[in-house]
Amino acid sequence: MKFTVDQIAQLIQGTVDGDGSAIITTFNKIEEGQKGSISFLANPKYESFLYQSKATAIIIANDLVLKEKPLATLIKVKDPYFAFTILLQKYQEFTSIKETGIQQPSFIEQTAEVGKEVYLGTFSSVGAGSKIGNNTYVAAHVTIGKNVRIGTDCVIYPGVVIYNDTVIGNSCTIHANAVIGSDGFGFAPQADGTFTTIPQLGNVVLEDGVSVGANTTIDRATMGSTLIKKGVKIDNLVQIAHNVEVGENTAIAAQTGVSGSTKIGKNCLIGGQVGVAGHISIADKTIVTAQSGVTKTVRKEGQILGGTPASPNSEYLKRNALLRQLPDLLKRLDS
Amino acid sequence: MKFTVDQIAQLIQGTVDGDGSAIITTFNKIEEGQKGSISFLANPKYESFLYQSKATAIIIANDLVLKEKPLATLIKVKDPYFAFTILLQKYQEFTSIKETGIQQPSFIEQTAEVGKEVYLGTFSSVGAGSKIGNNTYVAAHVTIGKNVRIGTDCVIYPGVVIYNDTVIGNSCTIHANAVIGSDGFGFAPQADGTFTTIPQLGNVVLEDGVSVGANTTIDRATMGSTLIKKGVKIDNLVQIAHNVEVGENTAIAAQTGVSGSTKIGKNCLIGGQVGVAGHISIADKTIVTAQSGVTKTVRKEGQILGGTPASPNSEYLKRNALLRQLPDLLKRLDS
Amino acid sequence: MKFTVDQIAQLIQGTVDGDGSAIITTFNKIEEGQKGSISFLANPKYESFLYQSKATAIIIANDLVLKEKPLATLIKVKDPYFAFTILLQKYQEFTSIKETGIQQPSFIEQTAEVGKEVYLGTFSSVGAGSKIGNNTYVAAHVTIGKNVRIGTDCVIYPGVVIYNDTVIGNSCTIHANAVIGSDGFGFAPQADGTFTTIPQLGNVVLEDGVSVGANTTIDRATMGSTLIKKGVKIDNLVQIAHNVEVGENTAIAAQTGVSGSTKIGKNCLIGGQVGVAGHISIADKTIVTAQSGVTKTVRKEGQILGGTPASPNSEYLKRNALLRQLPDLLKRLDS
Repeated sequence: MKFTVDQIAQLIQGTVDGDGSAIITTFNKIEEGQKGSISFLANPKYESFLYQSKATAIIIANDLVLKEKPLATLIKVKDPYFAFTILLQKYQEFTSIKETGIQQPSFIEQTAEVGKEVYLGTFSSVGAGSKIGNNTYVAAHVTIGKNVRIGTDCVIYPGVVIYNDTVIGNSCTIHANAVIGSDGFGFAPQADGTFTTIPQLGNVVLEDGVSVGANTTIDRATMGSTLIKKGVKIDNLVQIAHNVEVGENTAIAAQTGVSGSTKIGKNCLIGGQVGVAGHISIADKTIVTAQSGVTKTVRKEGQILGGTPASPNSEYLKRNALLRQLPDLLKRLDS
Repeated sequence: MKFTVDQIAQLIQGTVDGDGSAIITTFNKIEEGQKGSISFLANPKYESFLYQSKATAIIIANDLVLKEKPLATLIKVKDPYFAFTILLQKYQEFTSIKETGIQQPSFIEQTAEVGKEVYLGTFSSVGAGSKIGNNTYVAAHVTIGKNVRIGTDCVIYPGVVIYNDTVIGNSCTIHANAVIGSDGFGFAPQADGTFTTIPQLGNVVLEDGVSVGANTTIDRATMGSTLIKKGVKIDNLVQIAHNVEVGENTAIAAQTGVSGSTKIGKNCLIGGQVGVAGHISIADKTIVTAQSGVTKTVRKEGQILGGTPASPNSEYLKRNALLRQLPDLLKRLDS
Repeated sequence: MKFTVDQIAQLIQGTVDGDGSAIITTFNKIEEGQKGSISFLANPKYESFLYQSKATAIIIANDLVLKEKPLATLIKVKDPYFAFTILLQKYQEFTSIKETGIQQPSFIEQTAEVGKEVYLGTFSSVGAGSKIGNNTYVAAHVTIGKNVRIGTDCVIYPGVVIYNDTVIGNSCTIHANAVIGSDGFGFAPQADGTFTTIPQLGNVVLEDGVSVGANTTIDRATMGSTLIKKGVKIDNLVQIAHNVEVGENTAIAAQTGVSGSTKIGKNCLIGGQVGVAGHISIADKTIVTAQSGVTKTVRKEGQILGGTPASPNSEYLKRNALLRQLPDLLKRLDS
């Protein structure tokens, strides 16, 4: 990579304050800026680095009031984080080489159909009756079961296991060792204390643009489908139980678990290590803070929830603050 | 599938109320019932669907008092959930095709022994001295180490890794990318702050009828065995540390972690995201609610525990309720 | 294994109290001691077993005051746990057979370099431009991406996925199905509620002596490196997000999650199921108890923290104790 500051400014529709002819060869975090690198400042927490950074250029917000003069040339934009994202995407486009072709050894059942411009990595296998759409990249060591449908332009990383009957839309990304379509945890307790296994006859459906993190598990439905709707982003080590539905453009952070038959609305943000009980629903645009436990249906849209059992986060924070006053409270009571 | 309501009623020992000659071609959840489908009603929460459902037949409890007349033909049984489970199992039996044979490419060490009617999927490997029992199904991409014993009638899904010396009983199910027999987390801190690795020389033993979820990890014992007893059901992303013992017919929900050398009794129900401390024991028939942390030995059988540190759930719920009154409490104190 | 008590005592620099010529053939936990076995007593909790154990020999501390006379021959040392560890290590050295060689089928890209005395298991693949150092053991079904550097004397267990550009030092251990270098969870929310993917162009660096547990995930940095420093020990099912740094000799127990751009100091002990927020730092020698949530930067070294949000553990425990007095508190207030 070798661009001038002016060229980059043009790409991200910014205005240059400083030497527009300076050469940029790499990206860097603002605190690690060095000659030839470009950084950005979005989080005010890092503002002090702006004035010390040795980066050649830094992307900042139009409305940032400078406390002193930075060493770097500045590129001013409306949204520095978004501008930097565009820059990274352009860079990735320029540098990535498209790979296609069926690597050997790999295994494709005779009745499976593989589209055009598909890549299938070494030691990957495609089961009977499965279809892989055009331009999809399946890395090494991927197991695709029977009657699986995978759309176009997907990326499936190594070690992913896709059980029979799974349906995956277009432009989905599934990270390494994720498991899609494992049996729901369905066991009926018997009078003698043993369990009878409840057959899990449904499947998993991922709509277009879904992203699934590494080592995440999404269980198939008992009947019908576990449904992950358009644009949902799921982080690593997340558990999605059978018959769950996750609404459009909801994001779920790492190590969160959603219990069976629960329905999460669209445009929700679920923090890390959250637990969501079974058979409930969560309204659209709900934000659940990390480590919370949602135990009941949330009907009102757009709330921020925290704690276990989850309540509006302001109440949770207030309770936490009062809790810290308990020792003092007790003293006053005793006096 | 194509059966009459009468035929299904006979299978599950129910009585028909409505058209017994109606044709059933599929299963469905009661809220998604459609012509030709059969559903069931077990959870009273869903009773309203009973009266609107377009299902052809619905299985209900003998003792359910109807509030209005459903559109569907009814099959009345003692336990609708159990009856439906039986139906799903029968369906699964009818429709599943038994697969056997060693797929190619795969790899079996010369000293390994493979029983009759075994299936071994593509890219799976069996290490030296290992034995696989009759009728066991080993999917694609499974790694079986050395000196492993696997019983009869097991199902091992893709990507499972079974370390050396593991012993697996009959009729066990292990879901994709689970790891059985990884080293216990054993490190002895040294004076200089570094750690010395404690060799983990034991193994993992799964008795008959154990089910292990996707991406779950069960560590080998330092010495002796990590022991998962008969009929235990373990969900996805669960961590079982070295030298743990889990008693017969205990069920453990997703993302729960059990620390080293702890002994869980039989017929326990451990919720999701629970943490259990090391070197403790939990009495038989204990129920631990989701997200709780069990920090001490539980001696009394049959309790329901909640919270962190876990206490009887009624106390935990009471404390939570009082906590919500704290703001008011404080106000009264200040007045 | 067949040694006399005297031979073992010499190995661990202990003094014998009893029959030094007795023959030892196996190891055992003290509560499971039997003829021919050697055990140790480190945790006072297990002292009662010392007097009943049928073990032939037991390693105890020099300064232990015996309450009665054990049946076993005793070997007295300064630190029984450490002495036993040494013994296990010696045993492991004696019994392990070094395996080398490239198993078939496996796949090594032409531009990859494999050192001397390397083992590469069946169905493993090494991508273009990658290098594997001398004496490293790569088990079956491992995926090594492109431009990966792996040092000498490492052990990589089955099913591990190492993404492109990862750097792994010497003497590292990575357990089965762990994922190193998956994309960070980076998505920029757009005005219409959808997300734009932020390219993750950095990598993961594991320094020397790092241990990673089964099914653990370590995400690559957006830019720069996610950095796991010398001697860090990470347990199973742990999530390390993008741009995290973990300091030397820190240990992290199972199912803990560390959010993006956070910096954990050296010689910390992080318990199981802990959550650490993003963009914070934790001082050296911090101990975080299990299930806690660290939400803010911890500046003071050497503290023990507990609860969510984490505070000094003594305060957390005190608050918990007071919480249990709440019902009583309320009663007194009402009287």
